[in-house]
Amino acid sequence: MPDNVHTKYLLSEDQMPRTWYNIMPELPKPPEPVLHPGTHQPVTPDDLAPLFPMALIMQEVSTEPYIEIPEPVRQIYTQWRPSPLFRARRLEKALDTPARIYYKYEGISPVGSHKPNTAVPQAYYNKQEGVKKLSTETGAGQWGSALAMAGAFFNMDIEVFMVKVSYQQKPYRRNLMQTFGATVHASPTNLTDAGRGILAADPENMGSLGIAISEAVEVAAKSGGTVKYSLGSVLNHVLLHQTIIGQEALLQLELADDYPDMVVGCVGGGSNFAGLAFPFIGEARKKGLKTRFLAAEPMACPSLTKGIYAYDFGDTVGMTPLVKMHTLGHDFMPPGIHAGGLRYHGMSPLISQLHAEGIIEARAYYQNSVFEAAVQFARTEGIVPAPEAGHVIRPVIDEALKAKEEGQERVILFNMCGHGHFDMAAYDAYFAGKLQDYEYPAEAVIEAQQRMPQVV
Amino acid sequence: MPDNVHTKYLLSEDQMPRTWYNIMPELPKPPEPVLHPGTHQPVTPDDLAPLFPMALIMQEVSTEPYIEIPEPVRQIYTQWRPSPLFRARRLEKALDTPARIYYKYEGISPVGSHKPNTAVPQAYYNKQEGVKKLSTETGAGQWGSALAMAGAFFNMDIEVFMVKVSYQQKPYRRNLMQTFGATVHASPTNLTDAGRGILAADPENMGSLGIAISEAVEVAAKSGGTVKYSLGSVLNHVLLHQTIIGQEALLQLELADDYPDMVVGCVGGGSNFAGLAFPFIGEARKKGLKTRFLAAEPMACPSLTKGIYAYDFGDTVGMTPLVKMHTLGHDFMPPGIHAGGLRYHGMSPLISQLHAEGIIEARAYYQNSVFEAAVQFARTEGIVPAPEAGHVIRPVIDEALKAKEEGQERVILFNMCGHGHFDMAAYDAYFAGKLQDYEYPAEAVIEAQQRMPQVV
Repeated sequence: MPDNVHTKYLLSEDQMPRTWYNIMPELPKPPEPVLHPGTHQPVTPDDLAPLFPMALIMQEVSTEPYIEIPEPVRQIYTQWRPSPLFRARRLEKALDTPARIYYKYEGISPVGSHKPNTAVPQAYYNKQEGVKKLSTETGAGQWGSALAMAGAFFNMDIEVFMVKVSYQQKPYRRNLMQTFGATVHASPTNLTDAGRGILAADPENMGSLGIAISEAVEVAAKSGGTVKYSLGSVLNHVLLHQTIIGQEALLQLELADDYPDMVVGCVGGGSNFAGLAFPFIGEARKKGLKTRFLAAEPMACPSLTKGIYAYDFGDTVGMTPLVKMHTLGHDFMPPGIHAGGLRYHGMSPLISQLHAEGIIEARAYYQNSVFEAAVQFARTEGIVPAPEAGHVIRPVIDEALKAKEEGQERVILFNMCGHGHFDMAAYDAYFAGKLQDYEYPAEAVIEAQQRMPQVV
Repeated sequence: MPDNVHTKYLLSEDQMPRTWYNIMPELPKPPEPVLHPGTHQPVTPDDLAPLFPMALIMQEVSTEPYIEIPEPVRQIYTQWRPSPLFRARRLEKALDTPARIYYKYEGISPVGSHKPNTAVPQAYYNKQEGVKKLSTETGAGQWGSALAMAGAFFNMDIEVFMVKVSYQQKPYRRNLMQTFGATVHASPTNLTDAGRGILAADPENMGSLGIAISEAVEVAAKSGGTVKYSLGSVLNHVLLHQTIIGQEALLQLELADDYPDMVVGCVGGGSNFAGLAFPFIGEARKKGLKTRFLAAEPMACPSLTKGIYAYDFGDTVGMTPLVKMHTLGHDFMPPGIHAGGLRYHGMSPLISQLHAEGIIEARAYYQNSVFEAAVQFARTEGIVPAPEAGHVIRPVIDEALKAKEEGQERVILFNMCGHGHFDMAAYDAYFAGKLQDYEYPAEAVIEAQQRMPQVV
């Protein structure tokens, strides 16, 4: 039975932050440059212009601490923002823990995840510069459906390359994109050189985010300027747009008169974790706080915990610029776990750098233990997590139980980045005992390293 | 591009109504009595005690204008309530209409519909009286998943009889119920006399809400008191619990400084429509307002527009008490439209009476025109409606276009009772041109009438 106490902390529309938070000025040292894939020289804005509108390229390299949210974007945000901050009182009670657990819930957005926070501004800036069509990749479909929705709002065509294994596992998310009017392909396709090359070598290839990125980038690059490319994670400007989450959480925790000892998120490319954590990392660095930051990833695709920190391509075929990041190798094919959004060989360069500098911790989890935690969350809090979001609940429960063991208080904040309403087949498979636990083979990254670009 | 104006009206937790609104005292005349199925005499509370806890039986017959929401229920409500009231500015713009369109959005509840508003208090009152297990029916699964969630919160067993055609069309909603720990059967089953009888006559029977109710009632009736029955619509106490929606909307429209000319909802058993409309009907009667109230139903199952107003059973087999309502006959098997929540032969007695007295209008719609409207709503407002909710959007768009034709302002308020994230296969079928438009045959109700109980 719930206590007679607040479980939800809301902000009014007027309290919604008017700027995104840029962590760049708070980095201990400047980020490593992004390199041209051919020359290995630092890329210029002009190099990126075929793919992105100039406004986003400028955000990518900005060192301004705050960047204003355009009013039309802010207007659309207010449909689901500020998102609620919840105290997980029923989960705390079930765990009998002295820990106080808070979560930001991004599943109330129309497509059920945090992805519209960047899909809307990306569509907006492209529209401003006259772009009529965007190509993109998607794993489980959270990103693709968010961009499809934004495309519908701004009257733009959206072409989505959806990783084939997810296309098959999650037909409802494909339907969702189509309902918004987007065109969706199961990647690898026969529509691009990248896809044809992959299929020639392996006709049964089930796809990966890296391959889908190659295909979407190729469509934009070969369009003669009529199509731009849009990415749902990894890049600085994408993470920037998500920081509205953490900035809201800072204000909401003031309402709760509390502050986290630990901030936790799941990571694929890193955007939902960064969105919550970056404003708190900024606070910690400015005020000398000892807040811990934990990124949770799948054991099947453990770029932060098992990858190497090196220059690599963002895509599989090698069309994107080279970025310094934690990577399992651009040609790594992650097993078909249900957390399709976490099946990425690389990691956001900003998160990689923060991890390399010891500011962020990382842990990897097997999917069965993730679903066990997700079910416990669903039965206590009522919200069924997306499999990606399940990855953050596992360490949260573990930490809350550790707090109980140690008999000490602890304040844990995490990003509940989306609901699992499109992922119920994964729960069905979990209950049927059909989910496989994959482990990334230790020697694989050594081999992958030999196929990575050699940057001097 | 959205205007720089409010689209969302929120209430704080403290502003959430502390009572449910009971329309009973505002009825032009007292409701017709509920009759015992055997004796045809008015039922007593004791007659109903095998099925329901006494607190709910008392609410069923209460004539108090306001009934207090218990604090533990209120606590759980605050997870998703007060729900937002939206102004559909992007839809208005797409329609180029002078109408102002507002909608309450109940899809932000953890299971994505309005059903938890009554599932939580029903579980609570049963728990208070020591009940450990509830049996219920569900169509599309909105109700079943809401009760499964409430069961998880209150640590009660939930057994759900899910209409077989929906069980097959909507596996994700079955998975959702199972994730909350509920037991789910495809109805008709071999577990009850009612189900066995139906299957003996027709082994291929795809089920109906009426049959599923028979099965769930039988489980409770034969349990010797260990199992109670829970219903997701139709009954007075269920509609009562939903009135929190309309009461919130009254407060939110004050914030918007506006008032509806027309209140619209879709009806299966009637609970989401009543939840929004009853408080406005109360206002209209108290203040002499000329507000119109429109109930939208499927052409395939048009109980208000084609049914007769008579005493009939709430279930197919004839186990429930007799209620006076609009009915297509308790043995009517509605076609397998995707709006599974609207496939009910009868109608709430309160709504039936208000319709019979001319206070409520009703219209019926084909499912293809419903999905056309739902897609337009999704592409402008970002929210993909459940097929049930699509039924309310069709008349809303029609009325907005009529306002445009007539060149006059109009304020339309509707209940967007749930999202369609579990119903995407229906959209897929719509786009593929595979949805059939069913029409209820005019002569059917005459035949059905001959099989209805003859109450003198």
